[in-house]
Amino acid sequence: MALGEFELIRHYFSETGGTRGDVILGVGDDCALVRIPEGMQLALTIDTLVAGVHFFPDVDPEALGHKALAVNLSDLAAMGATPAWVTLALTLPDADADWLAAFSGGFAKLAERFGIQLIGGDTTKGPLTITVQAHGWLPVGQALRRSGAQIGDLIYVTGTLGDAGLALRHRLAEGSWQFVAPALRKRLERPEPRIEAGLLLREIASAAIDISDGLVADLGHVLQASSCGAQIRLDQIPLSGPVASAVASGAGWQLPLSSGDDYELCFTLPPDHQQEIPRLSDRLELTITQIGRIEVGSELRCVQADGTLWQPEQSGYEHFQDDDET
Amino acid sequence: MALGEFELIRHYFSETGGTRGDVILGVGDDCALVRIPEGMQLALTIDTLVAGVHFFPDVDPEALGHKALAVNLSDLAAMGATPAWVTLALTLPDADADWLAAFSGGFAKLAERFGIQLIGGDTTKGPLTITVQAHGWLPVGQALRRSGAQIGDLIYVTGTLGDAGLALRHRLAEGSWQFVAPALRKRLERPEPRIEAGLLLREIASAAIDISDGLVADLGHVLQASSCGAQIRLDQIPLSGPVASAVASGAGWQLPLSSGDDYELCFTLPPDHQQEIPRLSDRLELTITQIGRIEVGSELRCVQADGTLWQPEQSGYEHFQDDDET
Repeated sequence: MALGEFELIRHYFSETGGTRGDVILGVGDDCALVRIPEGMQLALTIDTLVAGVHFFPDVDPEALGHKALAVNLSDLAAMGATPAWVTLALTLPDADADWLAAFSGGFAKLAERFGIQLIGGDTTKGPLTITVQAHGWLPVGQALRRSGAQIGDLIYVTGTLGDAGLALRHRLAEGSWQFVAPALRKRLERPEPRIEAGLLLREIASAAIDISDGLVADLGHVLQASSCGAQIRLDQIPLSGPVASAVASGAGWQLPLSSGDDYELCFTLPPDHQQEIPRLSDRLELTITQIGRIEVGSELRCVQADGTLWQPEQSGYEHFQDDDET
Repeated sequence: MALGEFELIRHYFSETGGTRGDVILGVGDDCALVRIPEGMQLALTIDTLVAGVHFFPDVDPEALGHKALAVNLSDLAAMGATPAWVTLALTLPDADADWLAAFSGGFAKLAERFGIQLIGGDTTKGPLTITVQAHGWLPVGQALRRSGAQIGDLIYVTGTLGDAGLALRHRLAEGSWQFVAPALRKRLERPEPRIEAGLLLREIASAAIDISDGLVADLGHVLQASSCGAQIRLDQIPLSGPVASAVASGAGWQLPLSSGDDYELCFTLPPDHQQEIPRLSDRLELTITQIGRIEVGSELRCVQADGTLWQPEQSGYEHFQDDDET
């Protein structure tokens, strides 16, 4: 990379997310320095997106900038943390001004919505790889852990499941975006991190996780961490029209339950907080649906409308991106 | 990657660096949670190493694990921060048990030396790329910034410069490690982060940086951030025997001053602290050499033994790895 290209990269990221009072030193020294509010603990999460693995090489770079940040914010949301700062390690084959303008634009727009400042990063030459670490905080003892579910808690999910999975299926089948409905494509490319939901749920939920690998896998993580089982009712899983049609016409429950990339929250709730959910849903303008209940045991039982159990396919293949994450 | 391979990866990183009392939640939830000691501010730095760019594809994975952490700790050292936690985003073409055992071993050994705990990460499939973020803390207002140098301050460096650069030259010239002296190779592959030096210097130095891009470039960053110039005496630059010979026999000053990968500290010191350096050097068992002085202006003047100025070559090419870092 020639001298000027670094200037170009710096230019596009210099103002990302504005300036926060708790940032003592941002980009430009050996380290960034920040202040955590008193009584708060730091929450942090790191995720990598690799070209050809997590996104199509022809992805809209503006959408990629959004998603690279959104998937990390989704992890903060799942803990109930207030987002604050972010770092970005960007490996690029070359410095293309149009690409950088679009990528940094998508990244910055989402950062600004949540008042997040980019405080550090590293730019290297190599195969397109994007690593983002997001940092937030929350009061000591109030984190929404995976391990907090109790027997008898109700299980909820935000939004609808399977839309991103359906978009991906259509894109893979058709080889282009031309035949993919914009609303589905948006769910795949521009997931909405449920930050506000996480903050409000922090007060009442017993456990939470964001659905990145599919409900079955991610609820499974909650069950394992909480040492319990669960029953979910498949006819209560919230589905958009296109996903409901696809399930009915042969795609099966695998689509909404195991495709991943939903970035909705799955949480458990002590039953005495049940009546607070409609008001919370109104306030968030987000559907929140009860889908089941935590039980004794260690299994996740998926009950169909006719009362029979649905068995998830054993894929024998793990999604690479989210499995070993924190 | 098959199911078992994730277990393999988890296995190798599950115990890295032991358990710290300030880690509320480590690997295994949506976020890690940590506590910052009261009155301290958080220092953080992220760096990426890419195969074929920052290291030879045939690198010893144990050394690579060491270096991936060391280059980040070097940034903490340059701020005078106490290291605490680290996250690791590892992109791998496949999960090879021998490679993982060696890489995680090198990483963990260095982490344990400084009591650092691995608290989170992400493992993805793709071209070999390693991103590490290191976190530490330091008392509010005590960070060693690049911007603190004052006219009249003395300029020092730790250790010797150019050893890693000479190792790289030999390796590139010979095409193998066979003809590279082990002591030089060690400087390139297993840099020693100057953590203790940074902690002791925090009390007395006015500015500091770690030398990753070469003294000329990195001291240049200090001068720019501090709005001043400097004069250094080339005959006072600390060189090992092999580097001194190479400089004398044609490699020139470019080798020790612009090769990079030194990971020594360059710092500026108010003259009234000058007498403390020998004791500090003894305590650290590390040579610390005065090489020049901060001056009015904006230039870095490199004075040779005969009094004439040496001009660094304009490479027109920036090291990719460390230039846009924080």
